[in-house]
Amino acid sequence: MNRKMILYMPLQILRAEALIFLLPALVSFCYGESSAWSFLICAGAALAVTVPLLHFLKPKDQVIYAREGFVIVALSWIAASALGALPFVVSGEIPSFVDALFETASGFSTTGASVVRNVEAMSHGMLFWRSFTHWLGGMGILVFLMALTNMSDRPIHIMRAEMPGPIVGKIVPRAKDTAKILYLLYLGITVVEAVMLVCGEMDLFEALIYTFGSAGTGGFGIRGDSLAGNSAYSQWVVTVFMLLFGVNFNVYFLLWSRRFGEALRNREMWTYFGIAAIGFTVVLINILPQFGSASEAVRASAFQTVSILTTTGFSTVDFDLWPQLSKSVLLILMFIGGCAGSTAGGLKVSRVMLLFKVVRREITKMLHPRSVRVIRLEGKKVEDAVISNTCSYLMVYCVILFSVFLLLSADRFDMETCFSAAAACFNNIGPAFRAAGPMAGYADFSVFSKLVLTAAMLLGRLELFPLLLAFAPATWIRK
Amino acid sequence: MNRKMILYMPLQILRAEALIFLLPALVSFCYGESSAWSFLICAGAALAVTVPLLHFLKPKDQVIYAREGFVIVALSWIAASALGALPFVVSGEIPSFVDALFETASGFSTTGASVVRNVEAMSHGMLFWRSFTHWLGGMGILVFLMALTNMSDRPIHIMRAEMPGPIVGKIVPRAKDTAKILYLLYLGITVVEAVMLVCGEMDLFEALIYTFGSAGTGGFGIRGDSLAGNSAYSQWVVTVFMLLFGVNFNVYFLLWSRRFGEALRNREMWTYFGIAAIGFTVVLINILPQFGSASEAVRASAFQTVSILTTTGFSTVDFDLWPQLSKSVLLILMFIGGCAGSTAGGLKVSRVMLLFKVVRREITKMLHPRSVRVIRLEGKKVEDAVISNTCSYLMVYCVILFSVFLLLSADRFDMETCFSAAAACFNNIGPAFRAAGPMAGYADFSVFSKLVLTAAMLLGRLELFPLLLAFAPATWIRK
Repeated sequence: MNRKMILYMPLQILRAEALIFLLPALVSFCYGESSAWSFLICAGAALAVTVPLLHFLKPKDQVIYAREGFVIVALSWIAASALGALPFVVSGEIPSFVDALFETASGFSTTGASVVRNVEAMSHGMLFWRSFTHWLGGMGILVFLMALTNMSDRPIHIMRAEMPGPIVGKIVPRAKDTAKILYLLYLGITVVEAVMLVCGEMDLFEALIYTFGSAGTGGFGIRGDSLAGNSAYSQWVVTVFMLLFGVNFNVYFLLWSRRFGEALRNREMWTYFGIAAIGFTVVLINILPQFGSASEAVRASAFQTVSILTTTGFSTVDFDLWPQLSKSVLLILMFIGGCAGSTAGGLKVSRVMLLFKVVRREITKMLHPRSVRVIRLEGKKVEDAVISNTCSYLMVYCVILFSVFLLLSADRFDMETCFSAAAACFNNIGPAFRAAGPMAGYADFSVFSKLVLTAAMLLGRLELFPLLLAFAPATWIRK
Repeated sequence: MNRKMILYMPLQILRAEALIFLLPALVSFCYGESSAWSFLICAGAALAVTVPLLHFLKPKDQVIYAREGFVIVALSWIAASALGALPFVVSGEIPSFVDALFETASGFSTTGASVVRNVEAMSHGMLFWRSFTHWLGGMGILVFLMALTNMSDRPIHIMRAEMPGPIVGKIVPRAKDTAKILYLLYLGITVVEAVMLVCGEMDLFEALIYTFGSAGTGGFGIRGDSLAGNSAYSQWVVTVFMLLFGVNFNVYFLLWSRRFGEALRNREMWTYFGIAAIGFTVVLINILPQFGSASEAVRASAFQTVSILTTTGFSTVDFDLWPQLSKSVLLILMFIGGCAGSTAGGLKVSRVMLLFKVVRREITKMLHPRSVRVIRLEGKKVEDAVISNTCSYLMVYCVILFSVFLLLSADRFDMETCFSAAAACFNNIGPAFRAAGPMAGYADFSVFSKLVLTAAMLLGRLELFPLLLAFAPATWIRK
């Protein structure tokens, strides 16, 4: 265990985050808001601590293995959430540290669940920072650092631990270059969305907020009713981009490399589009009688289905008031989530596909006990190790989901609220149903529930194992 | 595929069921009820059809394999439920066939979910038949036939398909003898419970009803409020026996063979007792303020925790009115269920233990990639085939659970009702929450919902694969 690297890397993240604070500080400054000082104070304090520490602690041996990768990712995310919460507390816009931590973890994990009661009262700088965490968290904060700086020898272990999906491969031979390419693609699509939104009724600030929210599949907005007040054009643009950001970024890399055939053969993408289409159709038929015009119903069901499936969590209507069938469809979409290698949360489409293939193989084996069947994903044979890892994933996933549900039940809410809030935070969606519905939020939850949900959001975003391993005693025992 | 045997065995079950009809007919006759005729008419009709068919169809080749075992079990259970529903319809006590089918499948699958609005108005004969299906279904209707008659060469395949748990072994070399021993033990404990209940305030009829209900971990009673009106003594007796019937019957076999040490080393049993104890404690602390006396609270929480964990579904109070934490504990217990090789439903304790061991192995593998770790259950190495089958089981289980939930959502109930009803029927408990709560029942569900729940109950009782395989096209294709 390379303990020095385990300390060194999260400190690097904190230093980088302190520098990033200058961005929202600039926004605050442009709007003449006093919150600029909060960012500068926090940045200064963080730099004062991290810079000397980094200088003295620099490890000679920078080699890390899978185990260190998991722990580094877990600690970096916890540290980044804690530091990211400070400006909210210092400025007094979210006075309680637990609340601010919830909000920041919700941001980085691209959940978008909020404890802010009156979001319209927040300063532009804070709103910008809140949404910018979505953008950073979406593709990964360590991958971001990796793309920008010269990092250690084995960044692939960090990438594996931070990037979502059952199989994480490098798209080019070097992990560092892979990180750079992914971030460039990410930046490119982000810019396109922002430009398209500015072409509508939004100003640059609002366009950036909604772009960060959809790019990271986060969901923080600037108004209590999310996108309900925006034009049909903006809602459609956001719908399309949410859907696009839920696609595996390998597809965009292939398109960018002009390997169109390969890109279009991506089965996960088509399955994902298929799930979105089915969800959209069922919801549309179910909610049609509630709407005045068919075009409104089409827009609302497309927006909401895509928003939930991609685990973004924006809303244009209060879907908690929809008929139960639609609510159930949305609840199930929460669990599926977007594609692996995208910014979306949930189980991920490829993981669900893999699990279905395991079941099919098992049924074939029951019928023909001597049959041997290889499981393939995107044409490649899936290793047994990946399969057994995915099965464990499902088990741990169920255990954590029900544990979160149980712990929330100690609060004063009903079963629907507790279960859907657990599902919505753990799968990084944000809004749930009833007391945690799209027009309600998480402000009324107890401190204990907020801490549980904070843990659930980070567990969901990091796909369980990094955090579990970081806190497992076996990880720390010297052999 | 031995198609003749696939037809022959379910017909044998129907013939046996027709003969069993004489038992409730006798009960009706003793109470001077006209429902006796319904049983006799149905028995006569069934015999008139099955006896000649069995004579002409008798297959020369009685050899069956795993595949036939699954299909035979699936078809036998569907046929038995359909025939068992007829007396309800003929007597007019449950006029609708779908309702009667729901009730009978609920009986055989030991669910105990009821569509009868006024159970006090039913005749003794019908009540007896309804509860007797619990007793038959608990240990298995084909295993019952196997214990009584001379059956085909390879009954182990039928036993494997019908008996619950991830691993089904023979306790003595011959499967037929295993079946006999299991049923004798089952009968023995049943008689002890009935005698103990008769020693309280119950008459023989009532004692038998509650004995069948707890022996099969079913839950049908004779009053709308289940055991609420009974004495503390009877409630405690039922609590203890529900708990006992949730233990793996191998333990009783070991005790009976005076292998006490082996019996007491059964880890599944201790885990099961541990889960019951934890559930009981949490619920007790949580509901204490609602009760007048501590002894009442202890009795209610012990009764309800055990009733739900063993998937019986009796109730002494309306636990739907309990605080959310207790309701959540009960909901989670629904999924765990009793031990493998018992009459209980749910995932089964040993399957949950196995899944936890898989996760532990996976985490060890992440930390030490070259480690090799053997998974053991009750001291024996678990084959890889069993592990991958259990993982598939969990996946199929989740898919079916959420499918049932989704289909129920088309009905007019809320999310809590739909989800808990799906969980309660699929895990063979019976009562759920809200509109499907212990004092409500399933009478108000639509015909479609009732059919979905009927399928869910049978899927749950037969542990998914037999029914899935029986309806998979691949099973029927000749190679």
